[in-house]
Amino acid sequence: MSHSIEPLLGPNSVAVIGASDSPSRIGGRPIAFSKKANFQGAIYPVNPKRDMVQGLQAYPSIKDVPEVVDCAIVSVPANIATDAIRDCADTGVKSAIVFTSGFAEMDEEGARAQDEIEAIIKASDMRVTGPNCLGTFNNKSGWYGTFGNTLDMTKVPPGPVGIVTQSGAYGAHVYNVSQDRRIGATYWVTTGNEIDVDVAEVIEFYAQTDDIDVIVAYAEGMKSAERIRRALEMARDAKKPVIFMKVGTTAIGAQAAASHTASLAGSDAVYDALFRQYGVYRAETTEEMIDIAYACQFGQFPKGRKIDLRTISGGVGVQMADASHKYGMDVAPMPDGVQKKLKEMIPFAAVKNPVDFTAQALNDTSLMRKNVSLAIEEGDYDSHIIYLASVVASPLTRDACQKLMRDLRAAYPDELMAICVNAAQHLLPGLEKLRYPCFEDPSLTVRAMAALSHFGEVFERGHPDAPPPAPDGMLTAPKTAVAEHEAKIILASAGIPVSREELVSDAVGAIAVWRAIKGPVVMKITSPDIPHKTEIGGVILNIDDEADIAEGYETLIKRAKVAKPDAKIDGVIVAEMSSLGVETVMGVIDDPVFGPAVMFGLGGVFVEVLKDVTFRLAPFGVDEAHRMIDEIQGRTMLDGMRGQPPADIDALAQALAALSVFAHANTGQIESIDVNPFIVMPKGAVAVDALIIPKAQN
Amino acid sequence: MSHSIEPLLGPNSVAVIGASDSPSRIGGRPIAFSKKANFQGAIYPVNPKRDMVQGLQAYPSIKDVPEVVDCAIVSVPANIATDAIRDCADTGVKSAIVFTSGFAEMDEEGARAQDEIEAIIKASDMRVTGPNCLGTFNNKSGWYGTFGNTLDMTKVPPGPVGIVTQSGAYGAHVYNVSQDRRIGATYWVTTGNEIDVDVAEVIEFYAQTDDIDVIVAYAEGMKSAERIRRALEMARDAKKPVIFMKVGTTAIGAQAAASHTASLAGSDAVYDALFRQYGVYRAETTEEMIDIAYACQFGQFPKGRKIDLRTISGGVGVQMADASHKYGMDVAPMPDGVQKKLKEMIPFAAVKNPVDFTAQALNDTSLMRKNVSLAIEEGDYDSHIIYLASVVASPLTRDACQKLMRDLRAAYPDELMAICVNAAQHLLPGLEKLRYPCFEDPSLTVRAMAALSHFGEVFERGHPDAPPPAPDGMLTAPKTAVAEHEAKIILASAGIPVSREELVSDAVGAIAVWRAIKGPVVMKITSPDIPHKTEIGGVILNIDDEADIAEGYETLIKRAKVAKPDAKIDGVIVAEMSSLGVETVMGVIDDPVFGPAVMFGLGGVFVEVLKDVTFRLAPFGVDEAHRMIDEIQGRTMLDGMRGQPPADIDALAQALAALSVFAHANTGQIESIDVNPFIVMPKGAVAVDALIIPKAQN
Repeated sequence: MSHSIEPLLGPNSVAVIGASDSPSRIGGRPIAFSKKANFQGAIYPVNPKRDMVQGLQAYPSIKDVPEVVDCAIVSVPANIATDAIRDCADTGVKSAIVFTSGFAEMDEEGARAQDEIEAIIKASDMRVTGPNCLGTFNNKSGWYGTFGNTLDMTKVPPGPVGIVTQSGAYGAHVYNVSQDRRIGATYWVTTGNEIDVDVAEVIEFYAQTDDIDVIVAYAEGMKSAERIRRALEMARDAKKPVIFMKVGTTAIGAQAAASHTASLAGSDAVYDALFRQYGVYRAETTEEMIDIAYACQFGQFPKGRKIDLRTISGGVGVQMADASHKYGMDVAPMPDGVQKKLKEMIPFAAVKNPVDFTAQALNDTSLMRKNVSLAIEEGDYDSHIIYLASVVASPLTRDACQKLMRDLRAAYPDELMAICVNAAQHLLPGLEKLRYPCFEDPSLTVRAMAALSHFGEVFERGHPDAPPPAPDGMLTAPKTAVAEHEAKIILASAGIPVSREELVSDAVGAIAVWRAIKGPVVMKITSPDIPHKTEIGGVILNIDDEADIAEGYETLIKRAKVAKPDAKIDGVIVAEMSSLGVETVMGVIDDPVFGPAVMFGLGGVFVEVLKDVTFRLAPFGVDEAHRMIDEIQGRTMLDGMRGQPPADIDALAQALAALSVFAHANTGQIESIDVNPFIVMPKGAVAVDALIIPKAQN
Repeated sequence: MSHSIEPLLGPNSVAVIGASDSPSRIGGRPIAFSKKANFQGAIYPVNPKRDMVQGLQAYPSIKDVPEVVDCAIVSVPANIATDAIRDCADTGVKSAIVFTSGFAEMDEEGARAQDEIEAIIKASDMRVTGPNCLGTFNNKSGWYGTFGNTLDMTKVPPGPVGIVTQSGAYGAHVYNVSQDRRIGATYWVTTGNEIDVDVAEVIEFYAQTDDIDVIVAYAEGMKSAERIRRALEMARDAKKPVIFMKVGTTAIGAQAAASHTASLAGSDAVYDALFRQYGVYRAETTEEMIDIAYACQFGQFPKGRKIDLRTISGGVGVQMADASHKYGMDVAPMPDGVQKKLKEMIPFAAVKNPVDFTAQALNDTSLMRKNVSLAIEEGDYDSHIIYLASVVASPLTRDACQKLMRDLRAAYPDELMAICVNAAQHLLPGLEKLRYPCFEDPSLTVRAMAALSHFGEVFERGHPDAPPPAPDGMLTAPKTAVAEHEAKIILASAGIPVSREELVSDAVGAIAVWRAIKGPVVMKITSPDIPHKTEIGGVILNIDDEADIAEGYETLIKRAKVAKPDAKIDGVIVAEMSSLGVETVMGVIDDPVFGPAVMFGLGGVFVEVLKDVTFRLAPFGVDEAHRMIDEIQGRTMLDGMRGQPPADIDALAQALAALSVFAHANTGQIESIDVNPFIVMPKGAVAVDALIIPKAQN
């Protein structure tokens, strides 16, 4: 079954409402472009004032068009656009592209008009992109449902790349730059105000269609967590790389920071979480987005990171090695046997990796050929970069280089070999036909190879682990604020290990607990009205004596009463002193779009000064939790510093996954959770303090 | 007085030793290129086998050439190159370019030959670049002393950029890419094996010559700290930006890490120190190097970071704002009055900053004109970016845009306005003539503006503070290992505050010191043979009782004797307990090229896990120390965390500067110094422990 937005991109018949006879006017361009591109479908101009438009029979209304078209363009002023869209819906038009602007992006009146259109669309089966969009096009069929002058910009044949952007102007920018980079795009969609079709759904379509293998997306925000998650999952399952640029900040940053975790969610941590979770490559600049998309269109995604660096300049070899370190590639040394043979071949070359061809290889390109062959046949590398500077273009070496490239490709049809060259713009299409990705900057060549390896790993991994099942008897989130002890009882029911403790209501009870624990204890006042105990002196550490316990109890009650006379006091917690281990922090925030997301970080300065935390959307499994843990800057803290034994990372990962399951099961109920500190010991882990803030019930 | 390497770049007469009649052979190319470029100086081919070379009278030897040339190219095999160079020196040739390879880069025999040549050069006044280099050229005079086919690559007129690279192949790469970017380079030098002229000296020449305003440099290493420091200082004083790519790692990383500081020096911390100290922009990729050089050639370096972002796409505005945050630019809001006027002009535009023109401005470009004028006249911004996507190139808007740009420049001749456009490659030279730097990527436009502001700040700052004078009676570094107490006495003499303490040799003395301190003390065993006291239990904290002091003394002596029976024991230090403050670490390492460099970092995980440290070459003043402090990730720790008062940053900066003066005064004597911890209190600071490792005396 084809996707419901297919008529937007692959229509057999189209109408242009507000068609202009002038090929340069907005309402004239789609007709002029599509005719010029030899679009084979029927084109019906709609214009009540003209019989003919650009040589085609025109119709007064979409209702008069002799067939029900697959796609109608709406290019009329805002005040009559609603009627035009209603007419389209009434006649059963399958899809519409609304160029018209002046809706929600404009003012309140526009927003009301947009709501009206939305209602019309919802009541129909028609799929709509826009309003306030630049349209769509299909470079294969010649359907140019756009008023951007993209056809004039098109220089390379349609290829495996699909582009989708919210912004029209920026979509045109991306397309132009991609053409300059010889990226073959088949589909291009702009979604504008996203009244119906959004970026997520276009990604989903690209994930399904055979025409597209590489997805380039740009958005300023997402409206539906479910749609984008489904789309990214489909793309990953179809092994189609998604390169995404998401700008701006989520609403989280602006929220009052009710908890520590919320204050750490920062600008767009939740989008980082989303992209990491689905293996999306998040591009920071247009240059990066295009560069990675270019590399991806060759369709090779190595599963590993072992990289072979060849160069005709020693210095560039060092540059590429530096970049490999930065981008997490493994510049594994050539096997000893290969090094020996290389030394025999080019006596004064560097042969370990990077391998320096030296100028000798330029005089005798067969040396380069043998040199690269050795690495491929005996070296077991996942990818290769060959830096040739302008040797490829120089009249003296051009022909030999071309032959070398042809021979290498013939010998190794499936090897991922990228070439780094300059001054050879005119020769690049030929090299690309031989399936060599070509780059100009040595370090950025490494970045691109790292991106391909990233996708290779993501595709190889496939579906992540399922989230662990919720434990039998898992409690639900509280409806009102609860104190530490109750929070820990709830989290314990969700499978999160908590400190051994009891809540007592008199000194005698406190002494009994201390006796049972058989060791030093910590005593803490507990009251839903006193969330920050330490500020009132409500915690006494390390007591291991009967008289001190009794005295401690009275002291805590007195301090609480002095500090907050009206506080409801639940009693005093008597807890074992936490064992030695690494202090970590777990938490949950509630994102307005994506719902609960789980945070992880190390305690102390790591969260407070460095904001060294990472997030994932709930729920997730233990493998994803391990990837979270591996992402933080302070990761080595868990390996055992200063002779300490390593921390029990499995216990930590299980707790994170359990917390995600609890958060997900209570979606909409939780404002935030802090588990701080969560001590990870050499064996096991324990939540020492916890805070659950329920969502305010309106 | 002209620089001694001037004859290499501006010769009036040249000879080519090993001249070839074939314009494509290495020995033929400089002649062919220079003739083609209409070089006005005399060219003397030297070739004992020919009378004429490329239509010019040839000579059997440089000795037969009828005048003493300014520059001779040596393009003969290695086995006769030494004689050719000797002949040049003997005849008084002013400079030579040695293409010949097969010297130190090749093998030991080559290294010996190179030594011989070096001796010849040293005994003469001749300046030499190479051997194993690609030569030099001067795009203004048409002197192409190179066998790279650079002339064919040259597309843009000579401009203010000077390029110098160690590697020839990479130098050609940089030149080619810079030409594609329309960067006007006048001089280009490759230095190869750097037998005489090195990258530093070429930078010095560029800093002096009026032809060059922007310096692009690439090196794999430096041989003389003095030369590069002098060159970078001259460039800074001449307000000429230096964009430097330095690859690879220093020797430091490979040294046995004798101290904590040395282990933190990492890969090339000392080069980072050098570049930061002189305001050099360190580029990480070729793309970045060229992009920044391009921006610099417009010669505008704003003193501030207030940036005005204009866009025809809201999303791109957000992108640029994100990038501004990343690159430290200040997206200051428009003044209220400006916002009000903008709202009146384009009712539904974003007007705060970034300012969205909206499509309305495209229909009426006078709106854009007024819009930008407002920001310039009433907004007090240091730089402006105008994002226009492909509007500049579109047939519908091209002419209006051109007019807008001309008008704006005419109205504001000195305003730094960068344009971000695409699909307009053919229009860029015209815009650049109007002095608009043009970029394609919105985020990278911000990066370039930030680089210009960086240089603006560096040039405005000018000479940094002088290092503080060495205090009277400053002690010298010890010749042999000394224990903590003596190390602190030495550092105190250098102006570094140390903890109040005494070294005592019996319990009675210890008690006397404790009485004088009037508060809790720490007792530490002190022995040059026990550098790591804590490992043997050699430190007892927080004693404030006469009997405990006496017992502590005996305990420490006993532990030392058990742990290291042969240790020379100086006694026991009795010191005040350090006050509350922020724990920092200072240190010194000795770089084989650059000598002593001072490290600064925060204590604990900041250095141990995060390696969050920064270095500067000694000596430096208090302002440079403040810049070091401001660079570290954990900087906010010093502002007072969790309600603590801020730390005394001035005291810290003074101590760092004092340490740098001490380290410099003892250049060659110190292997490394650790001052760890150095506690910075709300008022004052104090070194609690210190270790000085003298250089091993051979």
